[in-house]
Amino acid sequence: MSHAPIDPVDLTAELIRCPSVTPEEGGALVLLEALLSGAGFECARVDRNGTPNLFARWGAKGHENSFGFNGHTDVVPVGHEANWSVAPFGAERKDGFLWGRGATDMKSGVAAFVAAAVDFVRRTPPDGAILLTITGDEEGDATDGTVALLDWMVDDGEAMSVCLVGEPTCPDRMGEMMKIGRRGSISAWFTARGEQGHVAYPHRARNPVHAIAQLGARLSAHKLDAGTDHFDPSTLALTTIDVGNGATNVIPAEARMTVNIRFNDLHSGASLTEWLRTEASAVAEATGVDIGMEVKVSGESFLTPPGPLSALVAEAVEAETGVRPGLSTSGGTSDARFVKDHCPVVEFGLVGKTMHQVDERVEIAQIGQLKAVYSRILAGYFAG
Amino acid sequence: MSHAPIDPVDLTAELIRCPSVTPEEGGALVLLEALLSGAGFECARVDRNGTPNLFARWGAKGHENSFGFNGHTDVVPVGHEANWSVAPFGAERKDGFLWGRGATDMKSGVAAFVAAAVDFVRRTPPDGAILLTITGDEEGDATDGTVALLDWMVDDGEAMSVCLVGEPTCPDRMGEMMKIGRRGSISAWFTARGEQGHVAYPHRARNPVHAIAQLGARLSAHKLDAGTDHFDPSTLALTTIDVGNGATNVIPAEARMTVNIRFNDLHSGASLTEWLRTEASAVAEATGVDIGMEVKVSGESFLTPPGPLSALVAEAVEAETGVRPGLSTSGGTSDARFVKDHCPVVEFGLVGKTMHQVDERVEIAQIGQLKAVYSRILAGYFAG
Ligand SMILES: [Zn+2]
Ligand SMILES: [Zn+2]
Repeated sequence: MSHAPIDPVDLTAELIRCPSVTPEEGGALVLLEALLSGAGFECARVDRNGTPNLFARWGAKGHENSFGFNGHTDVVPVGHEANWSVAPFGAERKDGFLWGRGATDMKSGVAAFVAAAVDFVRRTPPDGAILLTITGDEEGDATDGTVALLDWMVDDGEAMSVCLVGEPTCPDRMGEMMKIGRRGSISAWFTARGEQGHVAYPHRARNPVHAIAQLGARLSAHKLDAGTDHFDPSTLALTTIDVGNGATNVIPAEARMTVNIRFNDLHSGASLTEWLRTEASAVAEATGVDIGMEVKVSGESFLTPPGPLSALVAEAVEAETGVRPGLSTSGGTSDARFVKDHCPVVEFGLVGKTMHQVDERVEIAQIGQLKAVYSRILAGYFAG
Repeated sequence: MSHAPIDPVDLTAELIRCPSVTPEEGGALVLLEALLSGAGFECARVDRNGTPNLFARWGAKGHENSFGFNGHTDVVPVGHEANWSVAPFGAERKDGFLWGRGATDMKSGVAAFVAAAVDFVRRTPPDGAILLTITGDEEGDATDGTVALLDWMVDDGEAMSVCLVGEPTCPDRMGEMMKIGRRGSISAWFTARGEQGHVAYPHRARNPVHAIAQLGARLSAHKLDAGTDHFDPSTLALTTIDVGNGATNVIPAEARMTVNIRFNDLHSGASLTEWLRTEASAVAEATGVDIGMEVKVSGESFLTPPGPLSALVAEAVEAETGVRPGLSTSGGTSDARFVKDHCPVVEFGLVGKTMHQVDERVEIAQIGQLKAVYSRILAGYFAG
């Protein structure tokens, strides 16, 4: 029996036509499960609390050469549809691009790997296993997405030896960047509670806006570090301050501020929580205003140190694109932050320029290139 | 013909029953006009742009001994009526108090002066004039209230030689404080405009929240002065900061902050505008964020230096209450800030503790005391 190779562009288009805005499955995982099952992959839906997830394995369970892939089919909302020049779920092709929500982030990445993996196991069945972990909740809270898949795998005796995440990693030019780690992310919500009063009698009030402004100025003026070998400097952003007092003659009772820190391997969620608490206490003491704080560590920083896995990926990228990718740890978080607790993980995907934007689109030629890169990675992994 | 003296408590109650929430006239000025006309006062409604105002004069126009009174019959909204333990416009008497919106601010003050003035001109018609300027917009924008009355008086050849404002001036105890000036008030609205971006790439954005926090910290840490002979130190309050960004991974494009300064005679609206502009420019320069500013000077500081008028009032207060009033310039603004451009002005009224609050109420005995103080002031003015 012979099969025509899967066209990753067609598959990307089919996935775009599935309106899988988080947490909607939208038909995307159903489509992939049918395709992978047909190619001899054992599949299982690993839904948790209504979040759809798909696990698929070709080859023997628990094989020591288990190549893993992680990706997501959910997409962010389209925003104001009237601002799009195409139907967001239409998968229109024009000007050398395939247009639609999820075109770069990351239905093309999923399609390219599925096409590469299916062709690979059909043409040259390896001595080993290929595992796919595809979640329907990467863009949302991610509490029941890749985490649920990894939990389920541990319980079920499934394991990846290494993992490639297919998120778009190239800022401008195909092939220029792969990721070997990510900075961590922590958010803190401060609530300053003072005492309301009239502006003419400030000594009878305690102004929480003064406390929040002081705290914000202290935090934003602090230089966390100057970067490390593989990491950019850590950065802090005050993302909002809100009081909602419309009366110019009233000192309000409460002020709120949110801060987000992207941090490198010199810090941890715990060390930054401690620092933020100390700063808040100092301002609270100086102003007499209570300052409450809640924190959420979305991910610790992590690094897969340059080694065989990153070399394998970098060489495949260079062979197919002519560009040697830089080893980066920049950018936002991805589900690699969960995978790294289980096996070495790196990320490579195409140019992500239009992700999350109106008129999201992918250069059609890059999808084929990406499939070729992934095919070469698989070949190299099982050859070595 | 003989008249019973006017009971200022009854008159206060009648005024409270007029629901004159700014800008509603509510029947209050109509009532006063009828009463004053009946007592021989020449009256004129001086409404401007829908704002009701009442002018009344007993005696000859342009007399060199023209004693002026300024007050208002409008009241602030009742807020959540369910929180009141009485009907806000019911003028109930219980526990020695008269209850209702406007009971202290300042229907009792208006009633006490009207009662004093009518009795005075009936019993001992003076060689001179008594002028009343009663506005229905002191609690609102005040653009067409006392200002309209003063404009009209200039055009019409009417003038006050001195003026007494009947706002409540005593913090706790009847008689303890009169006002011989007020601090000025200026508000500034800052809008910081940066560049939106993702928190993971702060170098591609310019964060307006950092700029606003820095500016807020600078302004609130600055000590404007240490007070002067007759004035408390100037004070600055950040009254609100608002961004409205709910996404912890987004650096917003804009942040807004409002500041109010109550200032003494070491500053002016112009000097403070200049200072605020300089501070905003320094932060804008340091952060690369544009900071726009709009200001409104609600009133310059002013002082009627201690002299014959303040002595007259202080002696009358002491004679009737047994308490020598302090000469203060503290507190919020009042319409005295407009009157001071026309003649010497001082303020004396009863205890203002519950003004603008739920369950506003006035001690009934204080209304009679206040009428007696005002009667004594009139007698002293025309005797001297
Ligand atoms: Zn993604
Ligand atoms: Zn008032």
